[in-house]
Amino acid sequence: MAASVTPPRGMRDFLPAEKARREHALGVIRGVYAAHGFDEIETPVMEDSSRLHAGLGGDNEKLAFAVMKRGLGPHDLARAAASGDALSLADLGLRYDLTVPLARFYATHRAALPPVFRSIQIAPVWRAERPQKGRYRQFVQCDIDIIGEAGQLAELELLTATVATLDALGLSGCTIRLNDRRILAGILGSWGVPDELRERALITIDKLDKIGTGGVAAELAELGIVTGDADVAAELEALTAADWHLADGVVAPPSWLDGEAYAELLALRAALPDAAIEFDPTLVRGMGYYTGTIFEIAHPDYGYSLGGGGRYDHMIGRFLGQEVPACGFSIGFERIVDLLAVRDEERPRAVVLVYDADVAAGRLLELKRELVASGSRVRLERRVKNLRALLDRVTADGFDAFAPVGAETTDAASLEFRDLG
Amino acid sequence: MAASVTPPRGMRDFLPAEKARREHALGVIRGVYAAHGFDEIETPVMEDSSRLHAGLGGDNEKLAFAVMKRGLGPHDLARAAASGDALSLADLGLRYDLTVPLARFYATHRAALPPVFRSIQIAPVWRAERPQKGRYRQFVQCDIDIIGEAGQLAELELLTATVATLDALGLSGCTIRLNDRRILAGILGSWGVPDELRERALITIDKLDKIGTGGVAAELAELGIVTGDADVAAELEALTAADWHLADGVVAPPSWLDGEAYAELLALRAALPDAAIEFDPTLVRGMGYYTGTIFEIAHPDYGYSLGGGGRYDHMIGRFLGQEVPACGFSIGFERIVDLLAVRDEERPRAVVLVYDADVAAGRLLELKRELVASGSRVRLERRVKNLRALLDRVTADGFDAFAPVGAETTDAASLEFRDLG
Repeated sequence: MAASVTPPRGMRDFLPAEKARREHALGVIRGVYAAHGFDEIETPVMEDSSRLHAGLGGDNEKLAFAVMKRGLGPHDLARAAASGDALSLADLGLRYDLTVPLARFYATHRAALPPVFRSIQIAPVWRAERPQKGRYRQFVQCDIDIIGEAGQLAELELLTATVATLDALGLSGCTIRLNDRRILAGILGSWGVPDELRERALITIDKLDKIGTGGVAAELAELGIVTGDADVAAELEALTAADWHLADGVVAPPSWLDGEAYAELLALRAALPDAAIEFDPTLVRGMGYYTGTIFEIAHPDYGYSLGGGGRYDHMIGRFLGQEVPACGFSIGFERIVDLLAVRDEERPRAVVLVYDADVAAGRLLELKRELVASGSRVRLERRVKNLRALLDRVTADGFDAFAPVGAETTDAASLEFRDLG
Repeated sequence: MAASVTPPRGMRDFLPAEKARREHALGVIRGVYAAHGFDEIETPVMEDSSRLHAGLGGDNEKLAFAVMKRGLGPHDLARAAASGDALSLADLGLRYDLTVPLARFYATHRAALPPVFRSIQIAPVWRAERPQKGRYRQFVQCDIDIIGEAGQLAELELLTATVATLDALGLSGCTIRLNDRRILAGILGSWGVPDELRERALITIDKLDKIGTGGVAAELAELGIVTGDADVAAELEALTAADWHLADGVVAPPSWLDGEAYAELLALRAALPDAAIEFDPTLVRGMGYYTGTIFEIAHPDYGYSLGGGGRYDHMIGRFLGQEVPACGFSIGFERIVDLLAVRDEERPRAVVLVYDADVAAGRLLELKRELVASGSRVRLERRVKNLRALLDRVTADGFDAFAPVGAETTDAASLEFRDLG
């Protein structure tokens, strides 16, 4: 029986040490975001099925877990069987990101929120992906978003708060990779890609890291996206090889460069003089809803991004029936939490009382209460024959000291603590 | 469109002020529980459907939200239609409590846990209840459990940690209502209730507050549970009217009193000399899995319990195939969070910078960073014509002071703060 007692496929239990590491990191993230003027909100884990499948979630919509209607009768089942539509049996679903729920939240509560609303959302999302190393079916996202600010101040506040958060987590030395969807559109335009194929073209360009410039060129040709005589491979090669010093501008701007978007990137660069910023005209970011600036945080020590985001000015309008500018940033929590260790100095002294079987329960409680009141974390352990094994175990659990408690122990002052570890 | 943009039925969004109150309370609860030697764990929100419907969740099993299998084809739908069994289309479900997942967690990870494992679980659960005032379909439970301790030390540590937590939340003056399932069994035995009807009889007795002694007696007779000549109404009247001073013992023990259980309640009373404890032989607590002590926390100012728990020695065995003693306590978080206010002294100074449209974004960021670094929480607000309305709004949002920022503002030292509110 024991072999079958596991969490559902692709989902994880967290034991105390790992849970403590996660809560510590979430506390740091919450604290820095709040100091930077963001306000935390929460939405239910479920949203109406129709909202999750409104075309705003991109490929993630297909990965949504569907929650069945309650009280389904034979009639409902027969109808679903006749139509072949399993989703007709579901009225709710688990959210696959925090952006769709945020757009719905903003539409619901707009009247109660400030004109420029800076939100924090720290919460799990669910995707029925094929489980693989580092990919889970339940994972935590840490999102900040600014809704109602059309100007670049939104991008700047998001990037500043994010870099400060990563610093506070001990991940200093991050680089911001920048691009703008309008610049990507310019490149695609210069290759003669028609408007209706541009979203599909971006999906291919997004694979650049994996399949290389030749692979991207081949796929774009195969799919009939680039049919003219543009040498896509060579141009991508040039784009990725170029050293884009934003501060110096571009001496001879290529024909595809969107002037307005590029001017904004230069302004962003100037407003963050201390940040390590790289302009990467091939940076895509997955989601189809981005409309302007897109960014990603990279760290020299890790071969993957620590988070990313961008501007999505048309999405809120889909729920509200009225355009509202928006820009967001998401930290890849599951990726960074493994890079962190709980720092010793931040936790209280943790002590173990090893008690003999004949000590009264009331006495033990009194001792424990006294030590807790003086600021310690306290665990009771019954004395066992193999004391060494017990002490090794509590040392591994992070305890700092222990004291034996016998029938002769009268109060906390008479305890003799010995250091562990 | 706006009218339809609400969270799913019976589920709630939390706006910033409410979310802050909730996170503050959860932080206090986490901190006190940890100091008392409990370790926080986390399990996925979903469990295998078969586990949620194994008979351990009582009536809550019927309220579980079912999650559909992925990739259901016409064949699966036809089969479900033929059998009329909608649940055959679900392989997962959302947990309806934290006890069933804990039992599963313990069975999975026993080898990595200490012999006496004290767990904290602070997490949402879901029940498809008919929504009504104060009843939600998603709500947070705060559970502590001690697994592997057969002795009364488990009950004592749970009660001590719980009372300390409520004190820390500002809810001092709580009373502990105590009973033991064995004492209830003795009462039912004295009425001639056969073993197989006892669980059902407890469901009726649990309604005592609502339907009174006469109502309970009538229902027990109607259901054919009490068929002899016991005067149930009169006996219940005597039981609830009696003043059970545990400390003095019972002078003439009634015939139904389980001596061993009562001796344990006396010992528990003696070990917690400062606690307000009431023995209530009619206290039931809903769940069928309790086997020994049961308890509830009452507060004189509120007409409902603030939490409760008890001993459930046979449940873990259902997953593990081996009996392990267990005892737990759950705080009714949704009930207590409304009683609390975030205390001002515990949060950092919060300031608003009201900036003119011509101030450069980079300058604003610099000012903000400087103030954040000095320990303030900072929000940027663009100056509007109606400054009074803006200041009223940020005061309501909990900000303490504001300063105007104009083109002439050079650094944080030149800001002139004025108090709000």
